[in-house]
Amino acid sequence: MKNFSIKPIGFICSDLKRRDDAPRQGFEGAPNALIEVLPPYRKALHRMQTGDEIIVITWLHRAQRHILKVHPRGNRSRPLTGVFSTRSPDRPNPLGLHRVKVLAINRGRLLVGPIEAIDETPVIDIKPVLELNDS
Amino acid sequence: MKNFSIKPIGFICSDLKRRDDAPRQGFEGAPNALIEVLPPYRKALHRMQTGDEIIVITWLHRAQRHILKVHPRGNRSRPLTGVFSTRSPDRPNPLGLHRVKVLAINRGRLLVGPIEAIDETPVIDIKPVLELNDS
Repeated sequence: MKNFSIKPIGFICSDLKRRDDAPRQGFEGAPNALIEVLPPYRKALHRMQTGDEIIVITWLHRAQRHILKVHPRGNRSRPLTGVFSTRSPDRPNPLGLHRVKVLAINRGRLLVGPIEAIDETPVIDIKPVLELNDS
Repeated sequence: MKNFSIKPIGFICSDLKRRDDAPRQGFEGAPNALIEVLPPYRKALHRMQTGDEIIVITWLHRAQRHILKVHPRGNRSRPLTGVFSTRSPDRPNPLGLHRVKVLAINRGRLLVGPIEAIDETPVIDIKPVLELNDS
């Protein structure tokens, strides 16, 4: 089975430094953060504007990839559930999905939020929200 | 810059055979399709049910990764736009996001739809929709 190679297109700069400090979802009290887009990919931000709703896809670099079932939200009173039915970061390909608003843009830096990703998390894609599709 | 290795966890089985045949989004007349989850990952489907709303993340294997700006929807009368502000499949990491409903489950096979991904597209993650976050 062929694997695919993902390249970081940027990184999260956040005050959240440790996985244990991060809320489980952005709407659960997460802070704003900067996305620093790497120079080779900055042209791909052309026409992005303050106020845009975007989906940031991250690579959850601290996650464990061999885990297939978890207790949802780490709560042992909840039954073991396949990770494809949870938002656990631990999963075969540890992708994070974050719907956020663009609060400011300065060249290759986007201020976005709220977002629960921790500092130095690699960003692998950014997409606009399509209201008909994503909501 | 370190790259990351993504492993397919399954594949799309669809009547859509060519990229030119596929609508741009699922809500634009796309068919239902099967997701065949590979045996090592089937435990991660535990507790998924018919009727669940899920987000399928695909690897758009026919896309071009060097393209940073496109005319949205291939329409040359629309201005060139950075791919991070479009849903173009051509982008540095060609990830597809598809919000679909689970119509049936039979062991490692999920019938889902509507979905615009073409036949044999690798599936790399499946997540439940969180209404507070994704809509």
